[in-house]
Amino acid sequence: MIYFDNAASTPVHEKVIEEMNPYFKEQYGNPSSIHKYGRLASSAIQNARKRIASLINAEINEILITSGGTESNNTALYGIGHRNKDKHIITSSIEHDAILEPCKRLEKEGFQITYLPVDKYGLVNPEDVEREISSDTCLVSIMFANNEVGTIQPIREIGKITQEKKIVFHTDAVQAIGKIPIDVKELGIDLLSVSSHKINGPKGVGALYIRKDVKIDPLILGGGQENGLRSGTENVASIVGFGTACQLAKDSMMENQEYFRKLSMKLVTEVLKEVPYTKLNGHPEKRIPNNIHFTFFGVNGEDLIIKLDENNIAASTGSACSVKVQKASHVLRAMGFSHEQITGSLRLTMGITNTEEEVNETVQVLKKIVKELRAISPYKEKYNF
Amino acid sequence: MIYFDNAASTPVHEKVIEEMNPYFKEQYGNPSSIHKYGRLASSAIQNARKRIASLINAEINEILITSGGTESNNTALYGIGHRNKDKHIITSSIEHDAILEPCKRLEKEGFQITYLPVDKYGLVNPEDVEREISSDTCLVSIMFANNEVGTIQPIREIGKITQEKKIVFHTDAVQAIGKIPIDVKELGIDLLSVSSHKINGPKGVGALYIRKDVKIDPLILGGGQENGLRSGTENVASIVGFGTACQLAKDSMMENQEYFRKLSMKLVTEVLKEVPYTKLNGHPEKRIPNNIHFTFFGVNGEDLIIKLDENNIAASTGSACSVKVQKASHVLRAMGFSHEQITGSLRLTMGITNTEEEVNETVQVLKKIVKELRAISPYKEKYNF
Repeated sequence: MIYFDNAASTPVHEKVIEEMNPYFKEQYGNPSSIHKYGRLASSAIQNARKRIASLINAEINEILITSGGTESNNTALYGIGHRNKDKHIITSSIEHDAILEPCKRLEKEGFQITYLPVDKYGLVNPEDVEREISSDTCLVSIMFANNEVGTIQPIREIGKITQEKKIVFHTDAVQAIGKIPIDVKELGIDLLSVSSHKINGPKGVGALYIRKDVKIDPLILGGGQENGLRSGTENVASIVGFGTACQLAKDSMMENQEYFRKLSMKLVTEVLKEVPYTKLNGHPEKRIPNNIHFTFFGVNGEDLIIKLDENNIAASTGSACSVKVQKASHVLRAMGFSHEQITGSLRLTMGITNTEEEVNETVQVLKKIVKELRAISPYKEKYNF
Repeated sequence: MIYFDNAASTPVHEKVIEEMNPYFKEQYGNPSSIHKYGRLASSAIQNARKRIASLINAEINEILITSGGTESNNTALYGIGHRNKDKHIITSSIEHDAILEPCKRLEKEGFQITYLPVDKYGLVNPEDVEREISSDTCLVSIMFANNEVGTIQPIREIGKITQEKKIVFHTDAVQAIGKIPIDVKELGIDLLSVSSHKINGPKGVGALYIRKDVKIDPLILGGGQENGLRSGTENVASIVGFGTACQLAKDSMMENQEYFRKLSMKLVTEVLKEVPYTKLNGHPEKRIPNNIHFTFFGVNGEDLIIKLDENNIAASTGSACSVKVQKASHVLRAMGFSHEQITGSLRLTMGITNTEEEVNETVQVLKKIVKELRAISPYKEKYNF
């Protein structure tokens, strides 16, 4: 089976599993316990926290550990929103549902939310951010890299604006983390969400970077873990695994980037050559190196996924991080795509386990199945397939 | 090292680790993906959900999976509270902080919270519940078994009252689950919180049973996982592990109960015999079988923990599920304990890995260190130690 859905989830790295293992069977203490078991668990968390911080150039005490990217995003939005008198939030129209759904709830609570448009590449214009900031604005939340088309936003430019205007700036970096270097200090980021299972760590753990001067309300209350900002017994083994995954991602980032670019370039070049009426979506350069997003005109993306699956290739139409509802991608709509362009979309996302042979096989399979599907396409005559 | 802190956390069962393992390295798909990897992950969750449901005689679609007991409790309180016009909640004065802290927040939001008293055993009186219910009451939340002294509450009687009065009844069963049989249908429970890591499953996963007619608001919004009630990529491996832990707990409940009772009985009998000025706290019979809670008069519990730790025995003064703040137990205070009684408390909680030899050794160590500590106790003369 060929797995090209690494933006949805990734295999857990061998080394991560190895470092998690002792925390299941031997070091199973509750980090709040004062005995040896507790102290060992507690220091393991601090060690992992240091590694998480290091990946984004944060301080160790700026890392709040959560159950994943979605909880991090919810914590950022409610945590800033609910403690503010100013009730205006600026976000974009191509955010993940883990941003858009909390925003909808905040709207019901009386917040005003501005959803910025994007251009055809999926890029937010920093000038739009600047123009929309008012005296009521409490938060700007713009994702780092889009989960469907992989477009990297002008985070540095936005960070400069929010710093000048003294507005808290949050970015959902779930897809960017580990793929491209991120320095929260240099980029002027106040809050940043990350997830472990997108970078070969375990599922069920993530973090929210909170710049040390930024005050935030907790989402989950109880025993006061995580400095009172996230109660509940810490998920020690998974946190350790996440730390290891961050360390690995940092150590091999340049190497992985180069590898992903090579595989992606090959796949894009060959597919565009071999399969007519095909378009690469998202920005040609400003994109995370492991993301490829095509439109195959005259083909239904869902059918394509099923056919690929029959041929032992795992891919996605776009976001996998929402339940299996067939709805047209809000990201592609915001990019101005026609219904036909949206319908024919396919996302292939590389991971560290993928090989050049897998790319070759995928090109051949795509060539074959796109042809098959076009033979029975309602658009057959339009394109003269 | 002897581990008698199983109420704080437990070692993960060998079989649980074994069943989790494939979901790290091989079946790492995102359950929302429509390809094979996704379908396998999704069906693994459903299988685990069935096992979780089975442990408490719930239906499979009545189980909401969360990141742990604290999140389950928060979800129950806010999820019921925020969708109700009635703003009165009845709880007890001996709940875990994961209930008390959200209650405090709800009070700030305008809710009226009634904290019921308990008797010297830590028992809530069902008549108090009945009397306090008013037309404004939207929720009764009374824990199943106390995490410090192990007292089991009259859940059946409370469930009867809440059913008659048509009030939603939630119980935090984190300490009771797997230790004693729980049948949510028979007991008239509407919502019930459980946690995996207290029953030899992994940390970072738990569940909230929600009776099928009960409507609740989600705490975390996003991709719409868990039927829209808890967004975020599902923590597949841990959910599978939790399912296995539930299955094991169910299969061996009678056997474990008997074993815990035997060990506990032995420990209690010997300690009370060997160490003078010692008292067993909590209810003599209505208690979870693996919990022992002593007061050693004239001794500081924290000093005892440290001395035990030096002697390679892990124990606790009470709750380990809150950060390391030295504060007098609110549970023991509610039970009417004097400051001295509270200070001298020690909790020993059995697990499936404990042995009779460990009990014997612990009795000897306790005898020795209590004597040592009493020799330098400020209460030395009072008791004539």
